[in-house]
Amino acid sequence: MAVRKLKNYVNGAWVDPAGASYLDVENPSTGEVISQVPLTPRQETDRAIEAAYEAYLSWKDVPVSRRVSYLFKLRDLLEENEEKISRILVEEMGKSLPDARAEMKRVFENVEVACGMPVMQQGDKLIGASFEIDGEVIRLPMGVFGMIAPFNFPAMVPFWFLPYAIATGNSFVVKASKQVPNTMNFITELIHQTGLPAGVYTLINGDRTVADAFMEHPLVQGVSLVGSTPTCRLMARKCAENGKRFQAMGGAKNHLVVMPDARLNEVIRNMITSCFGCAGQRCMAASAIVCVGDDTYARVTEEFVRAARDVITTNPLDPAVADESMVMGPVISAKAKEFILGMIDTGVKEGAELLLDGRDIKVAGYEKGYYIGPTVFGGVKPGMQIHQTEIFGPVVVILKADSLDEAIGIINDHQYGNGASIYTQNGWFARKFKIEVKAGMIGVNVGIPAPVAYLPFGGMKNSQFADIKAQGKAIVNFYTEDKIITERFWSEEG
Amino acid sequence: MAVRKLKNYVNGAWVDPAGASYLDVENPSTGEVISQVPLTPRQETDRAIEAAYEAYLSWKDVPVSRRVSYLFKLRDLLEENEEKISRILVEEMGKSLPDARAEMKRVFENVEVACGMPVMQQGDKLIGASFEIDGEVIRLPMGVFGMIAPFNFPAMVPFWFLPYAIATGNSFVVKASKQVPNTMNFITELIHQTGLPAGVYTLINGDRTVADAFMEHPLVQGVSLVGSTPTCRLMARKCAENGKRFQAMGGAKNHLVVMPDARLNEVIRNMITSCFGCAGQRCMAASAIVCVGDDTYARVTEEFVRAARDVITTNPLDPAVADESMVMGPVISAKAKEFILGMIDTGVKEGAELLLDGRDIKVAGYEKGYYIGPTVFGGVKPGMQIHQTEIFGPVVVILKADSLDEAIGIINDHQYGNGASIYTQNGWFARKFKIEVKAGMIGVNVGIPAPVAYLPFGGMKNSQFADIKAQGKAIVNFYTEDKIITERFWSEEG
Amino acid sequence: MAVRKLKNYVNGAWVDPAGASYLDVENPSTGEVISQVPLTPRQETDRAIEAAYEAYLSWKDVPVSRRVSYLFKLRDLLEENEEKISRILVEEMGKSLPDARAEMKRVFENVEVACGMPVMQQGDKLIGASFEIDGEVIRLPMGVFGMIAPFNFPAMVPFWFLPYAIATGNSFVVKASKQVPNTMNFITELIHQTGLPAGVYTLINGDRTVADAFMEHPLVQGVSLVGSTPTCRLMARKCAENGKRFQAMGGAKNHLVVMPDARLNEVIRNMITSCFGCAGQRCMAASAIVCVGDDTYARVTEEFVRAARDVITTNPLDPAVADESMVMGPVISAKAKEFILGMIDTGVKEGAELLLDGRDIKVAGYEKGYYIGPTVFGGVKPGMQIHQTEIFGPVVVILKADSLDEAIGIINDHQYGNGASIYTQNGWFARKFKIEVKAGMIGVNVGIPAPVAYLPFGGMKNSQFADIKAQGKAIVNFYTEDKIITERFWSEEG
Amino acid sequence: MAVRKLKNYVNGAWVDPAGASYLDVENPSTGEVISQVPLTPRQETDRAIEAAYEAYLSWKDVPVSRRVSYLFKLRDLLEENEEKISRILVEEMGKSLPDARAEMKRVFENVEVACGMPVMQQGDKLIGASFEIDGEVIRLPMGVFGMIAPFNFPAMVPFWFLPYAIATGNSFVVKASKQVPNTMNFITELIHQTGLPAGVYTLINGDRTVADAFMEHPLVQGVSLVGSTPTCRLMARKCAENGKRFQAMGGAKNHLVVMPDARLNEVIRNMITSCFGCAGQRCMAASAIVCVGDDTYARVTEEFVRAARDVITTNPLDPAVADESMVMGPVISAKAKEFILGMIDTGVKEGAELLLDGRDIKVAGYEKGYYIGPTVFGGVKPGMQIHQTEIFGPVVVILKADSLDEAIGIINDHQYGNGASIYTQNGWFARKFKIEVKAGMIGVNVGIPAPVAYLPFGGMKNSQFADIKAQGKAIVNFYTEDKIITERFWSEEG
Repeated sequence: MAVRKLKNYVNGAWVDPAGASYLDVENPSTGEVISQVPLTPRQETDRAIEAAYEAYLSWKDVPVSRRVSYLFKLRDLLEENEEKISRILVEEMGKSLPDARAEMKRVFENVEVACGMPVMQQGDKLIGASFEIDGEVIRLPMGVFGMIAPFNFPAMVPFWFLPYAIATGNSFVVKASKQVPNTMNFITELIHQTGLPAGVYTLINGDRTVADAFMEHPLVQGVSLVGSTPTCRLMARKCAENGKRFQAMGGAKNHLVVMPDARLNEVIRNMITSCFGCAGQRCMAASAIVCVGDDTYARVTEEFVRAARDVITTNPLDPAVADESMVMGPVISAKAKEFILGMIDTGVKEGAELLLDGRDIKVAGYEKGYYIGPTVFGGVKPGMQIHQTEIFGPVVVILKADSLDEAIGIINDHQYGNGASIYTQNGWFARKFKIEVKAGMIGVNVGIPAPVAYLPFGGMKNSQFADIKAQGKAIVNFYTEDKIITERFWSEEG
Repeated sequence: MAVRKLKNYVNGAWVDPAGASYLDVENPSTGEVISQVPLTPRQETDRAIEAAYEAYLSWKDVPVSRRVSYLFKLRDLLEENEEKISRILVEEMGKSLPDARAEMKRVFENVEVACGMPVMQQGDKLIGASFEIDGEVIRLPMGVFGMIAPFNFPAMVPFWFLPYAIATGNSFVVKASKQVPNTMNFITELIHQTGLPAGVYTLINGDRTVADAFMEHPLVQGVSLVGSTPTCRLMARKCAENGKRFQAMGGAKNHLVVMPDARLNEVIRNMITSCFGCAGQRCMAASAIVCVGDDTYARVTEEFVRAARDVITTNPLDPAVADESMVMGPVISAKAKEFILGMIDTGVKEGAELLLDGRDIKVAGYEKGYYIGPTVFGGVKPGMQIHQTEIFGPVVVILKADSLDEAIGIINDHQYGNGASIYTQNGWFARKFKIEVKAGMIGVNVGIPAPVAYLPFGGMKNSQFADIKAQGKAIVNFYTEDKIITERFWSEEG
Repeated sequence: MAVRKLKNYVNGAWVDPAGASYLDVENPSTGEVISQVPLTPRQETDRAIEAAYEAYLSWKDVPVSRRVSYLFKLRDLLEENEEKISRILVEEMGKSLPDARAEMKRVFENVEVACGMPVMQQGDKLIGASFEIDGEVIRLPMGVFGMIAPFNFPAMVPFWFLPYAIATGNSFVVKASKQVPNTMNFITELIHQTGLPAGVYTLINGDRTVADAFMEHPLVQGVSLVGSTPTCRLMARKCAENGKRFQAMGGAKNHLVVMPDARLNEVIRNMITSCFGCAGQRCMAASAIVCVGDDTYARVTEEFVRAARDVITTNPLDPAVADESMVMGPVISAKAKEFILGMIDTGVKEGAELLLDGRDIKVAGYEKGYYIGPTVFGGVKPGMQIHQTEIFGPVVVILKADSLDEAIGIINDHQYGNGASIYTQNGWFARKFKIEVKAGMIGVNVGIPAPVAYLPFGGMKNSQFADIKAQGKAIVNFYTEDKIITERFWSEEG
Repeated sequence: MAVRKLKNYVNGAWVDPAGASYLDVENPSTGEVISQVPLTPRQETDRAIEAAYEAYLSWKDVPVSRRVSYLFKLRDLLEENEEKISRILVEEMGKSLPDARAEMKRVFENVEVACGMPVMQQGDKLIGASFEIDGEVIRLPMGVFGMIAPFNFPAMVPFWFLPYAIATGNSFVVKASKQVPNTMNFITELIHQTGLPAGVYTLINGDRTVADAFMEHPLVQGVSLVGSTPTCRLMARKCAENGKRFQAMGGAKNHLVVMPDARLNEVIRNMITSCFGCAGQRCMAASAIVCVGDDTYARVTEEFVRAARDVITTNPLDPAVADESMVMGPVISAKAKEFILGMIDTGVKEGAELLLDGRDIKVAGYEKGYYIGPTVFGGVKPGMQIHQTEIFGPVVVILKADSLDEAIGIINDHQYGNGASIYTQNGWFARKFKIEVKAGMIGVNVGIPAPVAYLPFGGMKNSQFADIKAQGKAIVNFYTEDKIITERFWSEEG
């Protein structure tokens, strides 16, 4: 059977990009090719951007309440197709079905928040900025915005941006990840069904060539990227010197601090979900556990390893595991698997204690999938590479600290500052952690401190290059230009 | 008499920077040397930044209401010294005394707005982000911020940033313009008198070496710059790749559009003030007038040139002009004068009509000052260099358009988009202008559409490299990191 | 055929209220009885309130994002049933189909705005209210809220409140108007279909007895009323002394001021729609036109009367008028008709010029309907009863003023201050009107200045008894109690 | 020596109210008469209101930044006179000097927050409410507001309102308490020195006659009252039916809950300050302690009584106690003393355990002062009158609960709901308490949970009759009318 070739969605229609070469898209659970994705050349990308700009010229004048009416429709269509999208997502990405459904929840949620744009896009009005002079701040859309999506959340990450960009009156061009293009391909079909005016939303498949167009084309006003830190840095530089806005979310190494008073029963389960969900390929996944005190270290290590052994590693679409709560699929690719295995070897060489080794796992029936079993290192020190590097796989390092201050120091000295959580029932420890930890998103007794969509999302240090965070009220600032008006009319009296 | 050598203000004390060379500071109205300014080397700048960082570590934990108490004191001291500062400012910068006093008003105003930080720095709290889970957004200070000041507003521009940076809990390092360092030098003395903890505020004199330190030192969290567009672009790039925040305000060419229904009596006076105040050296000064319709063009041109002839060009501190309302001083330096004269020559060569020629002005008694008289070109076309270039002197170009649409097109095609104003009594024209003009600050019957301090300040296109604007509520976003908290405590029941 | 007896919707089920007497509901276009509405006794109302309170105890802890999920569903159901509801509405109320559809649009819009509650209900968080002490403002639901609906917008007015009350976590009890209970009866069926937990929403049919329960029952936290000014005053008093919140919208007499520069072509059409839509039975309908200047008066009067003659008065569901744009139906009841005819007689007696007389209209085929034709008085003076009284029918009074100041004076001296509009293209006149007119909702070239749902709604003077307005962000204040938290935990260090 | 007769401050001048009788003002620490206060008749009050209205007519058009300039001056004058005002306050009210100084801090703070009005009074602007139609919400001042002050915070309570009323553009009339008029008399002199335009601020001395005028005069837009619950209820009713806004803060019985894990050392000191500061005459004073668990009850009771014995009861201006930290002065009057002694007798009769009896205290040298010593009841049950009644004196009741749920139940069943605090280090207990307790102001490890001025202030149940709270951002809603504008200008094209 011929493998399906994906198309781009440009100016309201599906098109085969002229001059594109094609790449295979694999199911990482089985190694099978499931579709082929075009690598769109620069010229085709530029044309799509220009079509998006034309669309913006009318779209910006559509009242905001009309603009969000398409989002209300989209939300319904997404809800109706939730299960279908979840399965497409699992097939190409390899996360478990419950994880895919959880991802979809966040997709809906972002659409829902953007539905509130008629309130959120309101600017300010001040009568009497001076005698008979008024001031206004009006929040206007800006033009075309681009988005470069990662492989790990094929649906959610584009939706951190898409609904807000459109609701505010911009047009939006998304480059899906070439590793997982099918999910946004299907969602694009739903967007098409909403009747959104042609060109307001565009889907381009491809690689760095597309990303370059976003950063360089003069009609693009801003770009969002979720990717590696070096790519973030490059994009930040290019956008900045071209006068474009940017939001670039990069690497992470999220720490969980366990205090002696933590509720261990709850905590272990909570940490397992955070560390091994999506096979550790979440920017908000925890991958480092810091235990405060010898006793805490001893108990946590033992119980965590025991619980990690119970994680089922297999093809998440295997019917046999449909109802299991903790299933872990493969990592995204052969290349990813190789990197992760290399990091585990490094950890061993560095002298960390390999408490649980997932390297040699065999998954019966899915021998070509890219599986690694849950892997846990104990006795890890802050200097080690397995602590310094984002491994992005099911590999957890456990450290020990003598005090909360030391634990916070370990986190703050790290190059990344995306998320971090503390486990404690004590209000003073929780407050200290919230204020002192250099991470953008903080959890208290929450393993994955990813904020709900009605609050902002963003990290610190090398985890984020951006002045404005994603999601919620915050992102309205990214997608609108505040114009400040000083207005007087001279008196018609006398 | 020995000329005074200026010092830096570091860690709460006045210091001579080790290894500095010194530059003469001139009174541009007379050509006299009035002081000498140190060019601080990199190492001394780095030390100052590190002292500022140390100060931040305590300052961030001082409650915001205490932090603003220093600003309340500063406001009083500035008010008491308003006239004194104004005169220092006129002496080194050359603007008129009324213009200096107007600048001071904006200084107070920014301090006043920052006094409201206990309300403005509040984050968000949501009970029930999920079952038994709450969400918080807390807005915390970030560390050391730098500011690079221009010559044209020696007091005001630093105060677009200074009070907000400090009120939010950061420490702040300002590099005064080496052409006009005396004003901030004096104001720094007042800041010292408030008892602000050492290191929270720092004054460094110098040149690009200091600016480089701001963009490169890892302890600097963000930099603000008001300067030329190429400098802005450079700074944006460097900050972006170093993960620093930036706000860079660059060049401008602000247009005033006169509609046929405009109140001409009011309009002419209003435009003269905008075009020739500060000898045209204001980023919000108008320097291009667009008349809609032949008749409007004819009447405006005639009356504007007549009024421009009445502007008095001289040393603003000359006692003879103390009570004159429209006095214009020199431009800032011999080099600036040379550039402006060159641009006038260019205009003549390009075929524009030189309706009023300020090149050969002689100011009796101040022959060494850098004077240029009011200069007006008619018949200017959008392609000409005198229209495309920011001249930053008392040179006005007048253009004609057949319609409001054409006038807006002229503005929107220009590389800069700082301010723009329309003169009309008609509500529809005003609205169209506000929405369609690509400039960050829009005036309606207001010659200088610079917003009051309780609204944001910022331009578009090549006039600004920044995602977040200065002043008002907006700048709180620049000086704070939003941390997002997801918090649960497990039940103590049962 | 037996006429249908309506039920109440209590605790998630349809019930016949014990001990109720029943009242006929008429189609005012035909005089036919279309259903019977129960007059619920006090005891049954109290029980319903108590059930609503029980529901609140769980509902308040449901996360706000879950709460709004029911509203998203409701919006879909309303959209699917828009035409059906519109026809029920026309049948019992008598407005035209386009007017009913316009009403439904506002219904959707209010639901949509309330869907944004996860953002709007966020409170404040301040780190560092004092040393190591934080402040929070949390916005919590309060309990049971009541709503007393009028006859003129059977669907829209309840939806000014309902979605917000529910989204914030309260339970909500609506008393439908006994003259038009069928619309909310049908909508309640849709609410039921959303699966909203039992008791969160309650429908009670009845008269003043129900209203009294709302004002007196200790479990009711607040009441909203749209009704007559004396009823508002009574409710305000009762609620205030019982410590309940209240929002009471009363009578209106909305003025339209026509300036000499107004675009008369547009204006006449605009005013006709405002004055005769819903047969003048809208709290935002204009019923007084003030012409500035003799010439304006002469032209407006002539053209307005001419246009008023073209309004088609008949049964809006008559197939013959299905596609007509300006159809006017009957007034709500025989009693209303009698009152309006009396007011017309009064106008004649007072010496106003009856330019168009709608008293003797005959509508063929619908002789039992309560029709009055468009009626216009000229030469009206501010002292006259036809100007002082809210007639709530298709009766328009035209006044003359010599200046805008005089026109504003006429409006400001009136007992009501709901809406008012000015027709002008001049920005200065518009601003003066906006600021000086004592009316809560102001239009500029807008005949019905009813704000969209994402802005607040409310009047001044005798038109509103309330500190907090309806709709938009404003009403969140009405439905939530701000609790202020001052929090410290003592250090666990040392 | 003749005792000084106080005057009113009306329309910018000090006046003796015509026809006034006079009342003696006593120093409650000594029983001496210190001044005489006029009881202003109705007619004089009405005239003052009318003068205030005249002042409003110009004041409302003064730009908000100018309006707050008077507050900046007032803040300086208050700061300069802090010690002087504190002593006047102690002399007439009887609280300790440290308490008076703490009161002054809150006075400054409220002035400071109101200085931020140029940001806080900004309304909303939405471009595109519909096609070519914009929406605005403008926040305008309303007219004259009245304020009725209590005796216990002669300076602070008026300043919960005064600076906000004035900053927003209203005029403000305060009725000082006739028991402590000297403090506001002196502060009024400072307000006079700021140069505030005549009539914007008015001081009226008197009794209920003045209050009646506030509630009845048609030019008064709203009234704030801090007083007894019956007075609040009366005022709420009168204002509501007269269409006036109101904020009425009434009685309180604030509970402190001590959990078993509380830090007892810190807690006891914290509770003593809360319970006996101002001799218990603070609306935010705690007067009921609920201990969770037998052991907690035993330890708290013992230690609290021991600490209460150390409180020094005397004339706070006695030089001998100048440097003591915990001095308690008299209650306000002979009548108050009599009531409190009666309540203690009642407690004994009800069967509560009188653990510390302050009834028979003798203060050497100040035998005519109205002293009561610290009084503590143990074994108190919720049904008892000493628990149900606001005693407003240095009388503390201690209750026992078996669980946090029971403790919360005790609080929630009480008629008052002003403040409540919990002592615990546990985050879950703290959150439960914050959400479930029916009190407007909640403390966690804070004995007096009175919010800082940049957060709102207000209670629940019988403690507050108001929809809008005092202080902070909240009160801007009370002092401004939101007008909603819907604006279009018809196209001037083609």
